[in-house]
Amino acid sequence: MSEPHGLDVLVPRRDLEQRHGPWPDGVRVHVWDGLTSEDDLPQDVLDRIGLWVLPYAVPGAERLLKRLPSLRCAQSLSAGVEKLLPLIPDGVALHNGRGLHDDSTAEHALALILAAQRDLPQWVADQREGRWEPHFTRSLTDSRVAVVGYGSIGTALERRLLACGAEVVRVARRARPDEDVHAVTELPRLLPEVDIAVLILPETPSSIGQFGAEELAAMPDGALVVNVGRGRTLDTDALLAEVTAGRLRAALDVTDPEPLPGDHPLRSAPGVLITPHVAGGSACYWPRADRLIVEQVRRFAVGEPLLNPVLRD
Amino acid sequence: MSEPHGLDVLVPRRDLEQRHGPWPDGVRVHVWDGLTSEDDLPQDVLDRIGLWVLPYAVPGAERLLKRLPSLRCAQSLSAGVEKLLPLIPDGVALHNGRGLHDDSTAEHALALILAAQRDLPQWVADQREGRWEPHFTRSLTDSRVAVVGYGSIGTALERRLLACGAEVVRVARRARPDEDVHAVTELPRLLPEVDIAVLILPETPSSIGQFGAEELAAMPDGALVVNVGRGRTLDTDALLAEVTAGRLRAALDVTDPEPLPGDHPLRSAPGVLITPHVAGGSACYWPRADRLIVEQVRRFAVGEPLLNPVLRD
Ligand SMILES: NC(=O)c1ccc[n+]([C@@H]2O[C@H](COP(=O)([O-])OP(=O)(O)OC[C@H]3O[C@@H](n4cnc5c(N)ncnc54)[C@H](OP(=O)(O)O)[C@@H]3O)[C@@H](O)[C@H]2O)c1
Ligand SMILES: NC(=O)c1ccc[n+]([C@@H]2O[C@H](COP(=O)([O-])OP(=O)(O)OC[C@H]3O[C@@H](n4cnc5c(N)ncnc54)[C@H](OP(=O)(O)O)[C@@H]3O)[C@@H](O)[C@H]2O)c1
Repeated sequence: MSEPHGLDVLVPRRDLEQRHGPWPDGVRVHVWDGLTSEDDLPQDVLDRIGLWVLPYAVPGAERLLKRLPSLRCAQSLSAGVEKLLPLIPDGVALHNGRGLHDDSTAEHALALILAAQRDLPQWVADQREGRWEPHFTRSLTDSRVAVVGYGSIGTALERRLLACGAEVVRVARRARPDEDVHAVTELPRLLPEVDIAVLILPETPSSIGQFGAEELAAMPDGALVVNVGRGRTLDTDALLAEVTAGRLRAALDVTDPEPLPGDHPLRSAPGVLITPHVAGGSACYWPRADRLIVEQVRRFAVGEPLLNPVLRD
Repeated sequence: MSEPHGLDVLVPRRDLEQRHGPWPDGVRVHVWDGLTSEDDLPQDVLDRIGLWVLPYAVPGAERLLKRLPSLRCAQSLSAGVEKLLPLIPDGVALHNGRGLHDDSTAEHALALILAAQRDLPQWVADQREGRWEPHFTRSLTDSRVAVVGYGSIGTALERRLLACGAEVVRVARRARPDEDVHAVTELPRLLPEVDIAVLILPETPSSIGQFGAEELAAMPDGALVVNVGRGRTLDTDALLAEVTAGRLRAALDVTDPEPLPGDHPLRSAPGVLITPHVAGGSACYWPRADRLIVEQVRRFAVGEPLLNPVLRD
């Protein structure tokens, strides 16, 4: 009795059926969360897998690619697939997790902004050390915020900023005047009027060091630099000079290098708040990832094009 | 040469004219910020003051009431005037600062919620202590938030919560079904389905201890209690028991007592974040206060009714 090949799928999450209803007819769903050894997966199942949803943030999981001879589609649950792409065999389509992190990352950017404007690190210290010394703080309301990298996450952040009574200045690679988006080359002119700059840049050859000494120098005294994109897009040495001088403040979810060494001077510089690359990783990620998995399996079953194809150039 | 009485006003802020345009004809504006001794104010000026805008958050400033024989209107820049009201002489109208703190207080409530959901106190400690140990956190997105005290500040908070992808459950003293507002008596039934409860209650005889052991027990494991209203509306002992057991978390801008003693067990309880009653006091307060002062002086000058009258019952 031979079963038809290629409608087997391998997903990293259990109980999706329970939460999202039955799988489409003809699809056989297998589960591998990437935490057990891939040697435990029977090769006769692997031989039939046509769609593989890779486990999220499990280094080394991509080794399994070598054992999936029927694979037609690989689905990553990350937006950035620059490291995975070269490992995908010819003839296999790669799909990414664009959008899954938007809410989580935008929310963390907002958390960093509010924590910095409302002096939360100070209050945390005062709480522990027994002090009760209220003072007026800055606010986000009435502030002007440059969103540097006005893409998918930037749009989600803008919605939150506007509801907080802030004004948003949109910045991308190229100007789109009809959408009020400025080119990144306009930053030196825009930044003197900005209270907060939020970097949400992907790491590309052109974006490395994009926000450097010139951009930092253009910001007014006391302004806040936030980075939730990639660490290397912000010039760490130039930032360190500005914060050490007490001229600018910073809130960073991504750093250069990463992990940031335990004795790195950024950790103790005044007015600097650091989180360990956790913007994308919060509870609201999984429901979005689960919905994408279920939708991609449905499309795969009926032969519709899958969402989020990654183009190779 | 005798000048007409009563169009003299005393305000606590300098340079309002510069920012908001010239004062109305016939008005003579004097400035007292409450920080210099009131003995330096010439009695012949005080004799003529018809409208006094009290300095913001200057304890003892109300002593000046005794030296203002022509006073017709007193304007407070606070929303809560329960302590000032009994000191206002008969025949003098009192006006409050309702609404001035809304944005600042709603923003701080949001900052507390996000800090708690995204583990910022943990990251602040890790930053100082040299750790880089990312983990998934809770989120505000997808959470259900009860706004307990759905008034002026609650409305401003709701706008922010909705933009963050949260769901809001509105609670006030009495139900208003047409506006989807629940009565506070429904809390025991509502709270089991809620991830976060934000208290924004005024302190009144009926609100003291409003959120007590029963309400806390109704909340699910791991839920977050936020208080930006008044400390005594939340039962501190009952909360302390829940957080010490690790069952609930809390983020408090107001406490009972206040200031919170340096050795109070709330300060070191797990999952508790405390700020020293600073929600209302941030940069976005002053532009709103200044606009109210200018508008009230204009109304006073032309004999229009002033905004925000405080009723005595
Ligand atoms: N901290 C975290 O946990 C976390 C989580 C998720 C994502 N991220 C990072 O965030 C990045 C952005 O994500 P996204 O989904 O918003 O991406 P996206 O939708 O592709 O948007 C990227 C934006 O950045 C702009 N951009 C690219 N290179 C630029 C440059 N050199 N100078 C100025 N602007 C530039 C693009 O401009 P154009 O519109 O002109 O092309 C676009 O507006 C990801 O690539 C990832 O590295 C971090
Ligand atoms: N932390 C800070 O720095 C800060 C700053 C500003 C203000 N506050 C505090 O926040 C309070 C609220 O300000 P607001 O401007 O939003 O007041 P508001 O507009 O008067 O709204 C108060 C809300 O609380 C409800 N309420 C009153 N007593 C209640 C009770 N016993 N049980 C349940 N709900 C009750 C009211 O219900 P109904 O609509 O049914 O009457 C109303 O919805 C102020 O009174 C002040 O104490 C704190």
